[in-house]
Amino acid sequence: MPVRRARPPSFELYAQAMLDHWLGKRAIVEFERDDGHRGKSDLAGYFAPPKAWLPIERDAMRHVRGRVLDVGCGPGRHALYLQGRGLKVVGIDPSPTQVALARVRGLRDVYEASVWRLPKGLGRFDTVLLMGNNFGLAGNLPRMRKFLRELAEITGDGGRIVGHTRIPGTWIDHHLAYVKRNVARGRPPGLLTLRVRYKGRVGDWFELLLLSPDDLVALAHETGWDFTRMLWRPDAAPSDYIAILEKR
Amino acid sequence: MPVRRARPPSFELYAQAMLDHWLGKRAIVEFERDDGHRGKSDLAGYFAPPKAWLPIERDAMRHVRGRVLDVGCGPGRHALYLQGRGLKVVGIDPSPTQVALARVRGLRDVYEASVWRLPKGLGRFDTVLLMGNNFGLAGNLPRMRKFLRELAEITGDGGRIVGHTRIPGTWIDHHLAYVKRNVARGRPPGLLTLRVRYKGRVGDWFELLLLSPDDLVALAHETGWDFTRMLWRPDAAPSDYIAILEKR
Repeated sequence: MPVRRARPPSFELYAQAMLDHWLGKRAIVEFERDDGHRGKSDLAGYFAPPKAWLPIERDAMRHVRGRVLDVGCGPGRHALYLQGRGLKVVGIDPSPTQVALARVRGLRDVYEASVWRLPKGLGRFDTVLLMGNNFGLAGNLPRMRKFLRELAEITGDGGRIVGHTRIPGTWIDHHLAYVKRNVARGRPPGLLTLRVRYKGRVGDWFELLLLSPDDLVALAHETGWDFTRMLWRPDAAPSDYIAILEKR
Repeated sequence: MPVRRARPPSFELYAQAMLDHWLGKRAIVEFERDDGHRGKSDLAGYFAPPKAWLPIERDAMRHVRGRVLDVGCGPGRHALYLQGRGLKVVGIDPSPTQVALARVRGLRDVYEASVWRLPKGLGRFDTVLLMGNNFGLAGNLPRMRKFLRELAEITGDGGRIVGHTRIPGTWIDHHLAYVKRNVARGRPPGLLTLRVRYKGRVGDWFELLLLSPDDLVALAHETGWDFTRMLWRPDAAPSDYIAILEKR
């Protein structure tokens, strides 16, 4: 019988690449979509200073207040910036390598945790930060609903989510083909199935949900949130936007 | 008992304003949304030469081929341009005033007809043109489905739709408020209820559907079409896009 090898988690392969990059080694990491499309990641971006961020990322920081939970914090680009400005920030990431990297880089409060099972003992937060497409990190719609309801439980009155996601890129041929493939299969148009490839190793498949802002308005409404503002700079990055949700 | 006066059709009030503008009279016409928001129309735009069009409108013309049906042609801006380039163009519009205006301006084939009941005797078309937000002119989703299926019946093999619509404008405060109002009422996020106001007269309410491109991919799939291309210039007009659908 063929032996089926377990795949390493994609988030951990990605973290290995990030650590190698940080250590000054040459690190080329790719995302592979389940239609075969591959794209290289820009690892330097995860360590860039604020002036090199997307304009909407800098805009997003102005909407962060109080005690902050940075979900999928990675090496801590945004969390370290906010901590440096005097905010209390807790970072979580599913990868122990990312947690170690963020800690070495100076983030004081950072823990290993997944979006599918948020830790209960961290107290209440005023802002939940989901940068770098992390808004759709929970994956498919049922998981997104559960995730958003759990975020409502760990935020106080007046709590908000500052989340980064993308409009499914239908104006780009290979993205349009993928959206059509999803529709033909009865999946949400912007649901991506991805895995990471690094140094000949291949990670497990995971899902990332991209949502048009009007669909995110509806999803927020269903899960106890109010979509109060959209930050968008279509001239700089037409896909990317920041959604600000406040507890209803 | 109170007497309930019938409202004139909004499309006809709008046509009156357009005729007045064309005759050199001062004409200020407004769209009123059912949440009370009002916006003035730019009537000069309907008579502008191609160099003053939105870039995506000029792009759209390059995708028009064969025998053309211009649905909601108004005074014939696009139809006249295409006729001048040697294409066979038939225009339809629900307003007799618009039909007369298009005819006077030189459009040879133009008839009074509504998107809700397409005329059957006009033969087969290679391209159906729906400019100026006319893609959503049929209104709510059931009507849009019926309309798209009817368009499939009057187009030949390889037939296409070149349609102009808008992404619901969630990045603009009063549009976001309207999208949220729709979601709270269980309506599609981008469904607008509008009427026209001109010279103290108020037209009847009508519906216009705006769709995110990923939702339009799904609607096309349901109705026998394939969304093959999106034309978008987010730097010039972030809301507006052209969808090209081809018969499956």
